[in-house]
Amino acid sequence: MTPVRVLSDEVIKHVGERVTLAGWLHRKRELKSVMFLVIRDRAGLAQVVLTGDGYRAADLAGLTEETVLAVTGLVTASAQAPGGAELTDPELMPLSEPAEPPPFDLYRPAVTATLPTVLDHAPTTLRHPALRAGFQISAASVAGFRAALDARGFTEIHTPKIVGSATESGANVFALDYFGRPAYLAQSPQFYKQAMVGVFERVYETGPAFRAEPHDTARHLAQYTSLDAEFGFITDHHDVMAMLTRVIAGMATAVRERAREATEILNVAPPEVPERIPQIHFADAQEMIAADAEWDPRGEPDLSPADERWLGEWAASEHGSDFLFVTGYPMVKRPFYTHPDPGRPEYSRSFDLLFRGMELVTGGQRLHEHDAYLAALAERGDDPARYAGYLQAFRHGMPPHGGFAIGLERWTARLTGAANIREVTLFPRDLHRLSP
Amino acid sequence: MTPVRVLSDEVIKHVGERVTLAGWLHRKRELKSVMFLVIRDRAGLAQVVLTGDGYRAADLAGLTEETVLAVTGLVTASAQAPGGAELTDPELMPLSEPAEPPPFDLYRPAVTATLPTVLDHAPTTLRHPALRAGFQISAASVAGFRAALDARGFTEIHTPKIVGSATESGANVFALDYFGRPAYLAQSPQFYKQAMVGVFERVYETGPAFRAEPHDTARHLAQYTSLDAEFGFITDHHDVMAMLTRVIAGMATAVRERAREATEILNVAPPEVPERIPQIHFADAQEMIAADAEWDPRGEPDLSPADERWLGEWAASEHGSDFLFVTGYPMVKRPFYTHPDPGRPEYSRSFDLLFRGMELVTGGQRLHEHDAYLAALAERGDDPARYAGYLQAFRHGMPPHGGFAIGLERWTARLTGAANIREVTLFPRDLHRLSP
Repeated sequence: MTPVRVLSDEVIKHVGERVTLAGWLHRKRELKSVMFLVIRDRAGLAQVVLTGDGYRAADLAGLTEETVLAVTGLVTASAQAPGGAELTDPELMPLSEPAEPPPFDLYRPAVTATLPTVLDHAPTTLRHPALRAGFQISAASVAGFRAALDARGFTEIHTPKIVGSATESGANVFALDYFGRPAYLAQSPQFYKQAMVGVFERVYETGPAFRAEPHDTARHLAQYTSLDAEFGFITDHHDVMAMLTRVIAGMATAVRERAREATEILNVAPPEVPERIPQIHFADAQEMIAADAEWDPRGEPDLSPADERWLGEWAASEHGSDFLFVTGYPMVKRPFYTHPDPGRPEYSRSFDLLFRGMELVTGGQRLHEHDAYLAALAERGDDPARYAGYLQAFRHGMPPHGGFAIGLERWTARLTGAANIREVTLFPRDLHRLSP
Repeated sequence: MTPVRVLSDEVIKHVGERVTLAGWLHRKRELKSVMFLVIRDRAGLAQVVLTGDGYRAADLAGLTEETVLAVTGLVTASAQAPGGAELTDPELMPLSEPAEPPPFDLYRPAVTATLPTVLDHAPTTLRHPALRAGFQISAASVAGFRAALDARGFTEIHTPKIVGSATESGANVFALDYFGRPAYLAQSPQFYKQAMVGVFERVYETGPAFRAEPHDTARHLAQYTSLDAEFGFITDHHDVMAMLTRVIAGMATAVRERAREATEILNVAPPEVPERIPQIHFADAQEMIAADAEWDPRGEPDLSPADERWLGEWAASEHGSDFLFVTGYPMVKRPFYTHPDPGRPEYSRSFDLLFRGMELVTGGQRLHEHDAYLAALAERGDDPARYAGYLQAFRHGMPPHGGFAIGLERWTARLTGAANIREVTLFPRDLHRLSP
């Protein structure tokens, strides 16, 4: 009878029993009279020790690293072994044909390969515990995003990724042939999530967004995972910022609770999210930078990366906060559906959330009156006919509403300190990369 | 001071207090000396009563249905009102410009519009409680899918939807221009979820899948939401069927718990999922049909819709089950990565799950040895070079594994009895429809 499989992190609970581990041969170390096998499974690592007859009898010649096998053995306490116990007196059972060695040693604590090698061989290289950990943090973050919104009455939606007209702007869209007609890949679920506020009041979506980014940088992707939320019956963008604060806190908590081992492997401390994140108006931020920094950003319609870094340092020293809301970005740099600040109409009711001096989330209040949309489009010289499906919702009663979008890969990169967003993107797509 | 907003289903808890409701004017009924307003919010419906001065003073001329407003009033118990209480002595506050009337009366219990009208005006028509309910059931189902797998050690993944070569078959793929190179929309995450078994052992994804379906039928869509799971260290497809059974049970439970009101509106009873779903081998199913039905399916490589209906009735009468697993479909009709039955190699270790006589889920064990993939591709005359990225994983050690994919819209349609899958698809895409 086969003993029931136990996971590597449960081995310690079975000292004195024979149990079966299954996983990948992570490392093989042959000494003169003893051989150590480290087995990797989804829970971590466990050690197997072969000595005497067991060592001599085992046909281990073909046992290369990454071969899949099951091992049944006696659990023996061992201070040196990962998890405090190891399997002795083992029987080995291969579960698959012998593996070819991976493109670099997955058992070394640090990743020794270059990023292109990691990406070209992703099905194998992502097995490295330090690379895998980023995706565990990513999965935990998405679970935290959903849990925070589920608890607040949001409904999950799944919207079309093939659209009939380029959405936010005509630039950087992928075109496709849709049964003989032109169509495009959606750059965001913006229009659909707004429409669904009319149905459910509060909605979210976690799905792919597409940008035909011609930029070959460490932060641009052709496909990313967008965590979108939108909700109605708000007073203004401050309600959206309050909701986002709770969502970010939920994501950080989920990382702490659901990806603890991954945070330890990467030495990542998920941020403490305060009850209320400090905020500053765009215009005040520029004044402050002009007064105290060596450059003068006033007159610029957006913040530069240097401005953001400066504000991140200011938030840390002045408020002890990793996070800072910058509110009221100039209307001229925001999309047409952005709600202006009625008191200062050149500024918007929108915001960016900076995390450690870099933009992490964009959001704000949207227009909700049909006439306001027609006026906004006319002002930009855009044709309302292109947005007919979208504008429908606003003719039939829409409440004041707003929302935000978090780029999952960007969030994970900030959290883990990844230098390149591709390190935390599963099979990234960019200007040059279309496989694996 | 504005009283805090309460939702329609909480009104009954505030009898004797003044509270504020916010939502859409679902219905306005003017009698001689009294006016009833029904307010719709995300939780349901609530009634507001205007009499005497309130009726006469209120400027209600412009108050068309679907206008968004807040109402503050005194909560008064009323057996006739929805939820057992209504707001009296109300003050009305419009929150948006007056709405145009919807394309059909959203307040009538039955949907009186045709499907094309519903779909053309989806941002408005989906507000109808009976149409909205389908999407509440859909959202609850996805939550149940994830919860069942989270509890069993699965990790969520997000894989590329733009791929460099047509995946499952060359047919019915959407082509796009990817920075000057040809690329395709992914028909499924099949290859990626298998590769990720090598990383996480157990993975799932809930995301869009694309088929350039030239069929204009009630069950084909160009984009659908695929609930995919894949996991390693199985003995054979029976382990996959056991996992799927728990997942389907989790989805049914989530619908019961998270979408109770929606199931009541649609008069839907989520199915009872037995601990073990009855199963029958494909060959035995054909023999049984040949013996007892008026046709002889033997020799056919697949089941016809009539066969499936017959088997559904058989499962109901013989086993009292809404569900039936049919196992061992002939290899010739299954994709190349399907694992054959070693004892009867013309049959596979795959299955379909029938629900009330219609195919709901397909799954099975996959090949896991690199040599087996090369042989399978050679036998079909396919070029391994087209699958280089995919085949990588199998050269570096993959455990026996399998999985399944559930079409979310198909599941919801079966559950709600929708005649056309478009009724339970948010903004469907098909041969003719690319907006809204």
